[in-house]
Amino acid sequence: MNPPPEPEPRETDDHWGDLTAEPRGVDYVEVDHGLRLVPHGTDGGRAALLCLHGGGFVSGSVFTHRKLYGHLAKAVGVPALIAHQRHTPEHPYPAQLDDALAAYADLVSQGFDRLVLVGDSAGGGLAVTAARAARARSLPAPAALLLISPWVDMAVSGDSFDINAERDGFFYRDVVRELAAMYLAGRDPHDPGANPLHADLTGLPPMFIQVGADETLLDESRMLEKRARDFGVEVRRDVFEEQQHTFQMAAGRAPEADDAIRRFADWVRPRLER
Amino acid sequence: MNPPPEPEPRETDDHWGDLTAEPRGVDYVEVDHGLRLVPHGTDGGRAALLCLHGGGFVSGSVFTHRKLYGHLAKAVGVPALIAHQRHTPEHPYPAQLDDALAAYADLVSQGFDRLVLVGDSAGGGLAVTAARAARARSLPAPAALLLISPWVDMAVSGDSFDINAERDGFFYRDVVRELAAMYLAGRDPHDPGANPLHADLTGLPPMFIQVGADETLLDESRMLEKRARDFGVEVRRDVFEEQQHTFQMAAGRAPEADDAIRRFADWVRPRLER
Repeated sequence: MNPPPEPEPRETDDHWGDLTAEPRGVDYVEVDHGLRLVPHGTDGGRAALLCLHGGGFVSGSVFTHRKLYGHLAKAVGVPALIAHQRHTPEHPYPAQLDDALAAYADLVSQGFDRLVLVGDSAGGGLAVTAARAARARSLPAPAALLLISPWVDMAVSGDSFDINAERDGFFYRDVVRELAAMYLAGRDPHDPGANPLHADLTGLPPMFIQVGADETLLDESRMLEKRARDFGVEVRRDVFEEQQHTFQMAAGRAPEADDAIRRFADWVRPRLER
Repeated sequence: MNPPPEPEPRETDDHWGDLTAEPRGVDYVEVDHGLRLVPHGTDGGRAALLCLHGGGFVSGSVFTHRKLYGHLAKAVGVPALIAHQRHTPEHPYPAQLDDALAAYADLVSQGFDRLVLVGDSAGGGLAVTAARAARARSLPAPAALLLISPWVDMAVSGDSFDINAERDGFFYRDVVRELAAMYLAGRDPHDPGANPLHADLTGLPPMFIQVGADETLLDESRMLEKRARDFGVEVRRDVFEEQQHTFQMAAGRAPEADDAIRRFADWVRPRLER
């Protein structure tokens, strides 16, 4: 597959990652499919993270998430690729899925055979969708899924949009409906290709979901957990009290974020050993 | 020379570079002496920038200045190294000079023979000092000096500390005296090793100084220009109306910053051709 064109930068994009501290000891190389992160001493292995960034599909970039995923790659001890993703509304579904799969196939062709799909927010749902699509396209399955506050429900049906409306500083039901409409571009919000809550999840790898107790997306992480278990998938789901959407962005500055990243690393590392 | 120990991170350090837009198309690799910046397509040449970051010697890091010098390296079309610098007060003069020279010698040993010394604020004065010291240690001379709002006068004598006190959002005479005292650690503020305004500048390469008209360091850029000319050095000095100290940090977001970087690049490029 050809690499996707690099998404057009958006002025506001590069700066919401400013919250994150510098991981240090990580090298950054722009490649065709995104930004390659190489924590020192991790070159030469066959395990890697493929990271799908959040931003509601309408924003975000490899740069907003450079430091977040730098921290995670360093903690796990493997290199990572943050995939370029085209933006809505110019590029609705399945543009982002195609971009993710192209990056995934590229890593496979480079000889990586223990891949972890990672995603936050919109990228979290996309990671689940990409794992399904990899199977459908006969690509090797990922070893695990790491999901940070995943946004999976294009029908925006969760009660926590109401219950947590006061506590969540980011996502209101109306905003998420707007984002979903741009992503779907007329498609049915229950389309299993775009909404993992309505998809056959058979054969997905073990999945670790992290979510803040105070976010409006709390419910759909619960629904995703249930759906995955119903299809026989191993799921761990950690709810972090008093935490907001993608609080892991404060890595290196907030102990809760560092704890969350450590939990991911401790859980996934044994799954990458052969 | 052995690489210096990497300076201890300071919590506030990494974030004042947040102002700068992502240059894009530049790779970042942490090496012994600092952070190597490789704009795409610039590998394999023998010209490079050695960048000395500002922060009053007490702060700043390769990360605060990553994007600023990424823009400059990209505009010039050569790779760059931002040198690690130890911090005052733990490490007074000549620690930063030693760090800069160690990085310089390392670039020379790698075969770079057209080096540009670049510095902003405290790093600007340090670039002049390092160019002198390179000569004294029989290292090949740099091809040029690019100085952004250089702080050179450890005696803090310029009238613009009074004249621009209202307009400059950063540096007051008292603050700069504090910084100088930590750097000098008891040394004479007129020591030619630490204060280029009192040094023999014979044989320095062509020098391009950029300074904001509204900053308290305006006078010392004028004094540096005069001193350098008195010793036969070719000097260009551009004063940017209504601009503040190191306004080039807004590269990619403010047209004045982009214009300033373009002027540097247009001026220095012919000096790197052989």
